[in-house]
Amino acid sequence: MTQRSAVKRLMLSGCAALALGVAAPASADTDYSQYRDTFEPLPALPPIPADNSMTKEKIELGKMLFFEPRISSSGVISCATCHNPALGFTDRIPRAVGHDGQVGERNSPTVLNSGFFEAQFWDGREDDLEGQALGPIQDVVEMAMPLEAAIARLEEFDLYQEKFAAAYPDYDGDNVINTDHVAKALATFQRTLNTPNSPLDRWLVGDEDAMNEQQKRGMALFVDNGCAACHRGPALTDSHFYRIQVPGSEDLGRYVVTGEDSDRFAFKTPTLRNVALTYPYFNNGATATLAESIQVMGQEMLGQDFSEEEIADIEAFMHALTGEMPKFDIPALP
Amino acid sequence: MTQRSAVKRLMLSGCAALALGVAAPASADTDYSQYRDTFEPLPALPPIPADNSMTKEKIELGKMLFFEPRISSSGVISCATCHNPALGFTDRIPRAVGHDGQVGERNSPTVLNSGFFEAQFWDGREDDLEGQALGPIQDVVEMAMPLEAAIARLEEFDLYQEKFAAAYPDYDGDNVINTDHVAKALATFQRTLNTPNSPLDRWLVGDEDAMNEQQKRGMALFVDNGCAACHRGPALTDSHFYRIQVPGSEDLGRYVVTGEDSDRFAFKTPTLRNVALTYPYFNNGATATLAESIQVMGQEMLGQDFSEEEIADIEAFMHALTGEMPKFDIPALP
Repeated sequence: MTQRSAVKRLMLSGCAALALGVAAPASADTDYSQYRDTFEPLPALPPIPADNSMTKEKIELGKMLFFEPRISSSGVISCATCHNPALGFTDRIPRAVGHDGQVGERNSPTVLNSGFFEAQFWDGREDDLEGQALGPIQDVVEMAMPLEAAIARLEEFDLYQEKFAAAYPDYDGDNVINTDHVAKALATFQRTLNTPNSPLDRWLVGDEDAMNEQQKRGMALFVDNGCAACHRGPALTDSHFYRIQVPGSEDLGRYVVTGEDSDRFAFKTPTLRNVALTYPYFNNGATATLAESIQVMGQEMLGQDFSEEEIADIEAFMHALTGEMPKFDIPALP
Repeated sequence: MTQRSAVKRLMLSGCAALALGVAAPASADTDYSQYRDTFEPLPALPPIPADNSMTKEKIELGKMLFFEPRISSSGVISCATCHNPALGFTDRIPRAVGHDGQVGERNSPTVLNSGFFEAQFWDGREDDLEGQALGPIQDVVEMAMPLEAAIARLEEFDLYQEKFAAAYPDYDGDNVINTDHVAKALATFQRTLNTPNSPLDRWLVGDEDAMNEQQKRGMALFVDNGCAACHRGPALTDSHFYRIQVPGSEDLGRYVVTGEDSDRFAFKTPTLRNVALTYPYFNNGATATLAESIQVMGQEMLGQDFSEEEIADIEAFMHALTGEMPKFDIPALP
């Protein structure tokens, strides 16, 4: 099911450069231990910013806000609508559907492990989760709620007055319910949404049987063909931006943020953790399957046509990146 | 905050008839034991239909379907959107917001304890949860998905093929994913969403301190003024229909179902279990507070102006109807 003809080729230097050293095919008794150094097991927690300590009270408040639909203009859209816990904290549709059924320009990224990203949104217009948190609330095609209205709505509830006061006990200003505190609480909750102990993680710490032979072959292909040049670090993303234009996309990507010509059609490397759960793929949800996406990435970013067998092996490895979902009770909102 | 002048008085016989015997004011040493006979503790489970046995597999499947947004036309609206577990399985807005942001005519009723209702929807157009389940999927202002399209969508997923087969092991037809099975699974899951052990329930089985004195005074007023004539049985509803037209409502109610003139503006008695969590109130969400709703009910249904103190006492009793929320993990959808 190739869409190759429709794909506009925009080769880049950084990522593809490492694709040149192609290894010999692996056999059943291959020693894969050399590949351990390429990856990092997912830590239990991402880095916590110095000015937003992770407290139980802030996590609890952030969880409430994450599920709170009344900070949307319609009253029925919350963060959890597009970042749905039942759907890998994404929505599994090509492009996000928000206020009044409007369809956005981009695919909803998963929130899982997003505390490990060094840039937020597909175009990296925010550096951290605190910066990201307030965007979708205000966006007219998402929750479509002016921040002042969202704050006013929260202020109506005694329970939020209590929970904000508990989360920010040292605050001595007038209005403890404010946008800074909303952003910090949402970011704090999201930093708890990590997925440790995937088959890859277990293999990395020594469990030889955590991945099967096909997954290990896929891992070798992934490294040897240069995929790991960009999909690296604990969340399997370098949080950098690369030019790629997938079928159906006219989105200028990071260019909208920087105005630099070199950023036209450039998007952040997406995390590959839990990628089997976060379909469809790419900035506009252009592809529905892992196999198709692997093929597109081979052609577009590596200048390479993977064989069906190679694609199947890499796909098997992608399934080894699914970790344990975070567990929590649904909050009781006021 | 009376809206009395705007309220069209539509007195009825059944419910108001019992409002005549008004008791003497209760004092701190009042014996309330006589009121025990008026109420029934909530059973652990509602009646289970003979043709839809409650199995673990059916509950699990029903939970998945309840959270499944891809059986909506937009792909983002599920049963849990308007019957939100974080909001007492309702949406806490006056009238439901559905497909493309359309606002429906009626307030979303809670799903909690709905297995105890003998009529479903505000107008009772279905008798049971099996009949109710398919309505909102198809309704053009709710999920707006033709049933054939919903079934076709579910059939795409191997996991649903497995889960339907497991839930209906004796089925020997061709398509185990069908509307009858969707309805039965959703109804089965909903029959688990009950809220036992409210203060009233604990008091009914002998715990004298489960309700405070004000709540007991409110209970006495509730019974002595005839509220319990209609708000009776385990879910505090008789599942019958009464004429009432609250501010802002032109809704013909049950008349739309029966065509009987006597059913104009008639609506089902809503459950009072968890009523403190299921604001706003009435068929169109006309009132936001319990106090206002109690006042309207006194005037409209009982022909009576409750004093502020009486309203406060009845409101306190309403809080004694909040039970333990059902606990479950958010399902992992395919």
